[in-house]
Amino acid sequence: MPQGKPPVVPDDGLTTRQRRHRPLVIVHTGDMKGKSTAAFGLALRAWHQGWPIVVYQFVKSARWRTGEEAAFRALARLHASTGEGAPVTWHKMGEGWSWIQRRRDAADHAADAREGWEQVKRDLAAQRYRFYVLDEFTYPLRWGWIGLDDVLAALARRPGHQHVVITGRQADPRLVAAADLVTEMTKIKHPMDAGQKGQGGIEW
Amino acid sequence: MPQGKPPVVPDDGLTTRQRRHRPLVIVHTGDMKGKSTAAFGLALRAWHQGWPIVVYQFVKSARWRTGEEAAFRALARLHASTGEGAPVTWHKMGEGWSWIQRRRDAADHAADAREGWEQVKRDLAAQRYRFYVLDEFTYPLRWGWIGLDDVLAALARRPGHQHVVITGRQADPRLVAAADLVTEMTKIKHPMDAGQKGQGGIEW
Repeated sequence: MPQGKPPVVPDDGLTTRQRRHRPLVIVHTGDMKGKSTAAFGLALRAWHQGWPIVVYQFVKSARWRTGEEAAFRALARLHASTGEGAPVTWHKMGEGWSWIQRRRDAADHAADAREGWEQVKRDLAAQRYRFYVLDEFTYPLRWGWIGLDDVLAALARRPGHQHVVITGRQADPRLVAAADLVTEMTKIKHPMDAGQKGQGGIEW
Repeated sequence: MPQGKPPVVPDDGLTTRQRRHRPLVIVHTGDMKGKSTAAFGLALRAWHQGWPIVVYQFVKSARWRTGEEAAFRALARLHASTGEGAPVTWHKMGEGWSWIQRRRDAADHAADAREGWEQVKRDLAAQRYRFYVLDEFTYPLRWGWIGLDDVLAALARRPGHQHVVITGRQADPRLVAAADLVTEMTKIKHPMDAGQKGQGGIEW
């Protein structure tokens, strides 16, 4: 339970209000489930704050995030019709990023990932959203498809009050060092250990 | 990334389909943020599956979960008007459980928690929902307000296909043993360590 009281009051010349509203880089890493679900749980809070949300899914999958995507698209429609909450934009790498009209003929995932990241950079520079979920973003970083230096520089110089949540296993130590809040999801027990298969409503 | 392939195929006489649709007890524990947000992220998947959802908030707080609650109430209204998704019921201990009409005069949290748990038991026995979030439920267990034996028995004998997600720090080892899926959220880094205070959209 958060106590609301920081253990250290930093000597950074900021007021409590300024410090409270500092934009965060949040990393959810570790081998266990919960990294992305916790990111989408945070996005619910952002929605309620009225912060425009964008989700970038950096790994292609037929089933992944279908539940979350449907729910956030519903929340986006609700915002469009009633003004409650915030707009939500959802980009999926697997189907071609939504701003790319042409169909790719080859599954060039590295180029897809790079195109996605270039758009994230443009969004950050333009302050297009307040809350970013870069889902499974650690993988293209780990696979060398996107340069970590470029990512750290873009995060460091992002203007305004843009929160960025990055999920995925094996977050690079330099990304962890640059982040404000890092949670590791650790396995204590998983039903697949007992031979159970994934199921709708739980895994997607 | 889930591979979808269990390492062991159990000799339990169940078909893959039966095994896939086995109801789960899920525990999110550990000292770090993400326990409840991941539970609400899972609930988005449940909503998309059309599974009736109930949330029990077992710890009183003015600000906690306001964002999630608003978003799920919006999703519930959407379901009521369009049929998309699923109904959502939200009970908060702090305001008196919603099925109790009278106002309590004293803040008898232990009795409140016990009343909440009795209602959970009735819901489980009646198969009233498909997806239960018992938020911060480890605390009344830890404080001895609710008996662990009673909880384990009610979970073990619950009929049908009811998933139950329990969040909170320091989950009892017997609860962990009884659960199917247990994730520990571990702190790598928290902004309060650097003197930052909680902020809307991130903490609530």
